[in-house]
Amino acid sequence: MTKIAVVLSGSGVFDGAEIHESVLTLLALERHGFDYQCFAPNIEQMHVINHLTGDVAEGESRNVLVESARIARGNVKDLAEAKADDFDAAILPGGFGAAKNLSDFAVKGSDCSVNPDLVNFIKGFAKDKKPVGFMCIAPAMLPHIYGEGIKLTIGTDQDTADAIEAMGGVHQACPVDNIVVDAGNNLVTTPAYMLASSVSEAAKGIDKLVDKIADMLG
Amino acid sequence: MTKIAVVLSGSGVFDGAEIHESVLTLLALERHGFDYQCFAPNIEQMHVINHLTGDVAEGESRNVLVESARIARGNVKDLAEAKADDFDAAILPGGFGAAKNLSDFAVKGSDCSVNPDLVNFIKGFAKDKKPVGFMCIAPAMLPHIYGEGIKLTIGTDQDTADAIEAMGGVHQACPVDNIVVDAGNNLVTTPAYMLASSVSEAAKGIDKLVDKIADMLG
Repeated sequence: MTKIAVVLSGSGVFDGAEIHESVLTLLALERHGFDYQCFAPNIEQMHVINHLTGDVAEGESRNVLVESARIARGNVKDLAEAKADDFDAAILPGGFGAAKNLSDFAVKGSDCSVNPDLVNFIKGFAKDKKPVGFMCIAPAMLPHIYGEGIKLTIGTDQDTADAIEAMGGVHQACPVDNIVVDAGNNLVTTPAYMLASSVSEAAKGIDKLVDKIADMLG
Repeated sequence: MTKIAVVLSGSGVFDGAEIHESVLTLLALERHGFDYQCFAPNIEQMHVINHLTGDVAEGESRNVLVESARIARGNVKDLAEAKADDFDAAILPGGFGAAKNLSDFAVKGSDCSVNPDLVNFIKGFAKDKKPVGFMCIAPAMLPHIYGEGIKLTIGTDQDTADAIEAMGGVHQACPVDNIVVDAGNNLVTTPAYMLASSVSEAAKGIDKLVDKIADMLG
């Protein structure tokens, strides 16, 4: 059975994995008949955001793996133990967790670094040209994984696109209901909530991303 | 435009609203062209469950409204301010939050009480026969809102069904991909994750529940 790794970064758009994007990803994978396993790093979140007010919840701390388990209904494993050889493809939903917990792109922009376990894991797919899908802000990490010249989208935000190009990525503007494909690397990206104004709008690009990965898997 | 109220009870199956059920509900509502507004009570959760281990996170406390904002991407209002007159229908996703935060059914079974703001809110729909949908464990609260003889399902769990019947409800066994309709009250229920083993399985019943509510709204 085709097995897909889904890497989460917490649970909540402002400090973790975007919940709608994550659930839509799991739903699309199942509807293709794919099996999946969720992973997340066993690290503290950069911070906790009160999602009602948008403020930092001072004095609160949460663990990325433990919070990701909310989306995964308990079935999530430590990213440090993930092996690319066990999977046919990998997908990263977005949310600020991708830019705060899996990397520090939200703070450092083009000077960011990326979680080494994530880099190692995704490089395991990249070297064999296995399909990989990144959505929302998560593609900002891709130049640090695939290297210069990697083609991707985060939608249309010019500042973010400039930062990605400063890291060696090739940014291509893309509407919410479409994908950008780097065919040489079997890499698919979609803007999702970088542009979406609703869950059904996000679903259009995410479904297309998963469809494309299914195509690549034959 | 048709407006639907969605009442959440936190964010995470073991201590809040079931995340998949909640997102699937919002997605189905949007695909019918319905507008929605999320609500949640501004109260502390019964407790916080570490969703990785299943254990109570001792010493931690979280607010139901604040955590629900994770699913609603910030756009959630206090249930105490919700007015049934502003909406055409109401839906409650499940998760243990329905039985721990919106009621104490998880602790007291048939001796449970239900959050008074929720009772008042849903009674506002019931008196005008406006469509209402409850899923997963949430229907256990319905005898306290609609009174004796209300027909509903929580799937096939006999102990839960017995507790519901002890409160005056009429439980009807139902598979995960179907719904139970109390036509006289325009009330629809579906088992969702009381029986579902995956997100796509839960989606079948939830989509059917929202379809039925759309039918009732004409």
